[in-house]
Amino acid sequence: MEALLRQSRAMCPFLHKTSPATLRSLSTTVATVAAHDASPGGGSMSNLQVLAKRCPIMGKALAVQSARTGNHALAGAFGGVRAYHTRVPRAKLHTSSPKEAQAVDIEKLRPNQVPYSRAAKQSAASIKHPAGAPSTPKPAKFDYEGFYQNELDKKHKDRSYRYFNNINRLAKEFPRAHMASKEDKVTVWCSNDYLGMGRNPSVLKAMHETLDSYGAGAGGTRNISGHNQHAVALEGTLAKLHAKEAALVFSSCYVANDATLATLGSKLPNCVILSDSLNHASMIQGIRHSGATKMVFKHNDVADLEAKLASIPAEYPKIIAFESVYSMCGSIGPIEEICDLAEKYGAITFLDEVHAVGMYGPHGAGVAEHLDYEAHVAGTPRGTIMDRIDIITGTLGKAYGCVGGYIAGSAKLVDTIRSLAPGFIFTTSLPPATMAGAKAAIEYQMNYQGDRRLQQLHTRAVKDALDAKDIPVIPNPSHIVPVLVGNAEVAKKASDLLLEDWDIYVQAINYPTVPVGQERLRVTPTPGHVREYRDHLVKAFDSVWNQLGIKRTSEWAAEGGFIGVGEAGKQEEPPLWTNEQLGVEGLLKEMQAGQGAAGVLESLLEKEHKAIAQAVSAAA
Amino acid sequence: MEALLRQSRAMCPFLHKTSPATLRSLSTTVATVAAHDASPGGGSMSNLQVLAKRCPIMGKALAVQSARTGNHALAGAFGGVRAYHTRVPRAKLHTSSPKEAQAVDIEKLRPNQVPYSRAAKQSAASIKHPAGAPSTPKPAKFDYEGFYQNELDKKHKDRSYRYFNNINRLAKEFPRAHMASKEDKVTVWCSNDYLGMGRNPSVLKAMHETLDSYGAGAGGTRNISGHNQHAVALEGTLAKLHAKEAALVFSSCYVANDATLATLGSKLPNCVILSDSLNHASMIQGIRHSGATKMVFKHNDVADLEAKLASIPAEYPKIIAFESVYSMCGSIGPIEEICDLAEKYGAITFLDEVHAVGMYGPHGAGVAEHLDYEAHVAGTPRGTIMDRIDIITGTLGKAYGCVGGYIAGSAKLVDTIRSLAPGFIFTTSLPPATMAGAKAAIEYQMNYQGDRRLQQLHTRAVKDALDAKDIPVIPNPSHIVPVLVGNAEVAKKASDLLLEDWDIYVQAINYPTVPVGQERLRVTPTPGHVREYRDHLVKAFDSVWNQLGIKRTSEWAAEGGFIGVGEAGKQEEPPLWTNEQLGVEGLLKEMQAGQGAAGVLESLLEKEHKAIAQAVSAAA
Repeated sequence: MEALLRQSRAMCPFLHKTSPATLRSLSTTVATVAAHDASPGGGSMSNLQVLAKRCPIMGKALAVQSARTGNHALAGAFGGVRAYHTRVPRAKLHTSSPKEAQAVDIEKLRPNQVPYSRAAKQSAASIKHPAGAPSTPKPAKFDYEGFYQNELDKKHKDRSYRYFNNINRLAKEFPRAHMASKEDKVTVWCSNDYLGMGRNPSVLKAMHETLDSYGAGAGGTRNISGHNQHAVALEGTLAKLHAKEAALVFSSCYVANDATLATLGSKLPNCVILSDSLNHASMIQGIRHSGATKMVFKHNDVADLEAKLASIPAEYPKIIAFESVYSMCGSIGPIEEICDLAEKYGAITFLDEVHAVGMYGPHGAGVAEHLDYEAHVAGTPRGTIMDRIDIITGTLGKAYGCVGGYIAGSAKLVDTIRSLAPGFIFTTSLPPATMAGAKAAIEYQMNYQGDRRLQQLHTRAVKDALDAKDIPVIPNPSHIVPVLVGNAEVAKKASDLLLEDWDIYVQAINYPTVPVGQERLRVTPTPGHVREYRDHLVKAFDSVWNQLGIKRTSEWAAEGGFIGVGEAGKQEEPPLWTNEQLGVEGLLKEMQAGQGAAGVLESLLEKEHKAIAQAVSAAA
Repeated sequence: MEALLRQSRAMCPFLHKTSPATLRSLSTTVATVAAHDASPGGGSMSNLQVLAKRCPIMGKALAVQSARTGNHALAGAFGGVRAYHTRVPRAKLHTSSPKEAQAVDIEKLRPNQVPYSRAAKQSAASIKHPAGAPSTPKPAKFDYEGFYQNELDKKHKDRSYRYFNNINRLAKEFPRAHMASKEDKVTVWCSNDYLGMGRNPSVLKAMHETLDSYGAGAGGTRNISGHNQHAVALEGTLAKLHAKEAALVFSSCYVANDATLATLGSKLPNCVILSDSLNHASMIQGIRHSGATKMVFKHNDVADLEAKLASIPAEYPKIIAFESVYSMCGSIGPIEEICDLAEKYGAITFLDEVHAVGMYGPHGAGVAEHLDYEAHVAGTPRGTIMDRIDIITGTLGKAYGCVGGYIAGSAKLVDTIRSLAPGFIFTTSLPPATMAGAKAAIEYQMNYQGDRRLQQLHTRAVKDALDAKDIPVIPNPSHIVPVLVGNAEVAKKASDLLLEDWDIYVQAINYPTVPVGQERLRVTPTPGHVREYRDHLVKAFDSVWNQLGIKRTSEWAAEGGFIGVGEAGKQEEPPLWTNEQLGVEGLLKEMQAGQGAAGVLESLLEKEHKAIAQAVSAAA
């Protein structure tokens, strides 16, 4: 039977291109059968059987088979899927089943093999409704709880089961948090509240006031009573931030990415979406949901992207979906090159700046803004890289400290998504206070560079200090500090030890968020992670690395290096924020005369802290 | 060519079952071509061509055709989709194209026919990257802005383009709001903040305190620093509310429905999802995203549902997805009967209580709780209808006045969704203050029935008063007051007139939210809509009905009735909240001795208002 299926697949374009799921579905939907198609067995026919009878090959085969065994030949051939409403005893039809068909699971769950039963749920109803009940003994029902248990067992087995840590980040003691008990305090080193805007006084003030005036929730979708001045103002601010005609706010950037890509991909005729191989799950889902043709290009590989673009007819719509900062490794997308390719091949660009908004650029608009730093300082965005991007998506829940997501682009694009995307249309708006808080955060960061500059200086300091201890940081030019562990169990253990013994919270990042073997601890410094916390972190990592015997950079180097760690001769990308942009160029030169590099950074940080403390107290 | 395609489709199971989109996709992906498959034209082959060559019918036809015209026969047959990388001039291949193929659009957008050009975006890049550029004149690129404009034009043309009203609901003047100008005040009659919990003092207090202590945002996904005591407490409260083992909170109930159905439907082997025909967009999307077999049963039709259940093999997993209160017509799902069928056929039930939580049942757990009112008052949920439901989904953004959504069910189910659903895993948690506010709202409504009882009394009063004026309310047993208009343009005009002339905000509900011809104004009374507002509403409706000549109930009746309005002899369902449950049984009898029905309700409401004013001041 297996050989027959393999052979059929190789020969028949229908079997070859149709998924087992669809085949099963076809085999289990009852066709509206015309008289001449009626099954010789007398029962109703599946849609699959109807199709098969029309095929010049299968039609003949079926005629022969049905003369011998009734009407079940085809069902048997398709891997254990059976024609139902049949009076032929079932067991005989399923002597074997090919491995690729999921129907195997069903075989395993048949009454005599079922490991757990669901008798409790079968009683009352059958008695109440005897009319439709068959007179023969009932087959086993599906065991849902057993299925859930099996799924959970798989997660435990491959170490991808997630244990959530109860982390209550304290606004007044940033970056500290308490655990389940208020007395049990830890330092959070993995939050995406990168700039501490979640406790920023101007954000909290806007939220308190809006709560009092306009209440807790929006009360409806944007179309039905949920549209208000806070939405108008926030979307106006976002459009201004990215120098686009318009913006649209969603429940989250997961929803923004999913809804926008799914809508464009399904509406644009013949759309092809080109997706970076490290794209976030929300984009992957959006592309999948669009049903559009998807082409995955190698991470940050413009040659591969160009080859794929060149293979698509010029007049077909194409979307290049990618990120500016890839959050788990800290790499940065080649935005300008991708814009060039998009223009050359008539594609539009969809840039996820989720981990970059608030963090890069003179106004915090992201990496695209950062790349033309001076032009944006001068207020001349036309013709810049940010201007060339067609769709920018971002979040209000990371550097802006609140929650929600958005897209920014041309007025017509935004109006189209507003008008067509179910994920936008059919959901309650974000609360007025959330939108007011997010707007305050964006405006604060548009006007003040201190937080993101300090964040970058702290990032450099953490990377330098870990390097000095031979702790393996995956090199990158961004604010992410990915520390390589390389094993799921060890990464979880390291995270647990840091929490239990050192009061440091850094979540282990395991599969499926990163590939197996690349498990890591992802450290995110903030402006609040001053020297005291940093010294403690480095000491803790050093100790845990010893305790668990985790590989050091030099050990990775001895093995030839791995994903950038200990790779000899590899040119490191300089940080995206230059010394000049950080405003530390002159100071650095001056101070390097007297001290070593680490000392210079330290002195700088002290100066920065003083300046920022003054700015914060002035703003409050 | 068209006739050929039609004929091919009727004959060939592959063409018949494969969508035009997939065919186009196959025709535009370049196959890894084995030597013996190489195209006689010398160019590369599309996947579609490879498949076609394997087919015993098409293989022969292609061999004949290619001898005559090169390798383009198949491409031509599939409606204008072309094999690319070809040196044959393109125009000759596209003399006609069948209507069902979207590729027609591409034809229309070719250079010589294109109505708008995108020259501006083509310049610099081609100069920068001359290497890959073809030497022949370039075909037109896709015109994205023209496409957006076209989509928007379609929305305008079919009157489904949405104009958002700027509505700022005032917490201290509920149910009043101001428009763009603070002086321009209106009464909101269509918010889903059904109970006014968005301005409830205990909700706002919890939010203010949490904001101050824990900041504006969660700072991460649930797995990475976004899990906290507020999430634990809220999910505990939700599980308790629905008497389930566990609950899980999402960004919205749109995401909860989408993520849960998509995950279960894709993971359960051979899953079939049975979906009520009036289900919300979020469930429809979730089912679509799951890829599972979908069977739509007629709205609230248990006979149709049973027929469909009976057609599926007993051991296949099945999910019956439905709602308790259908928000646009106010009908109520036959929950008990569906539980019976689920048990009989081994299905699980997925019940969306989005418009019912907070509103029905002694603790506000929804309609499923309401159906065993006394058992839940007594605190004995086991064996009740709510207990028999496998998965309950609800929102924190309507009757609970905040934002967010959730599922509740068995511990294993919830843990499975928690572990597998991308829409849960890869998104920032709701802010601590939102979760604290929602928890306060749920607990308030668990312990206090006054708001929902008063809401029901106001609903009865509004329905009675509109009936008395011959204004057509679509009858239903719930708190929704759908007023039939029957025309998109008129419904929009009525909504505009109510806003401009009467300071009343009721959004028009048009296609696609309701079918064409069933357009309506959907009125949602709250505990705050006291007699003064109601009288004004009824007067305004009466006037607008005259002004626009909208059909009255008696006019619908003269035509034989429509969707329940003016249908003679039709038994009206009694309201779900009985007089006894509202606690007005005794009072009603007593007062009916002296007055007419309307007067009785009015007196009752006055008593209720006094009692509630006392309760609120006691709580504050």
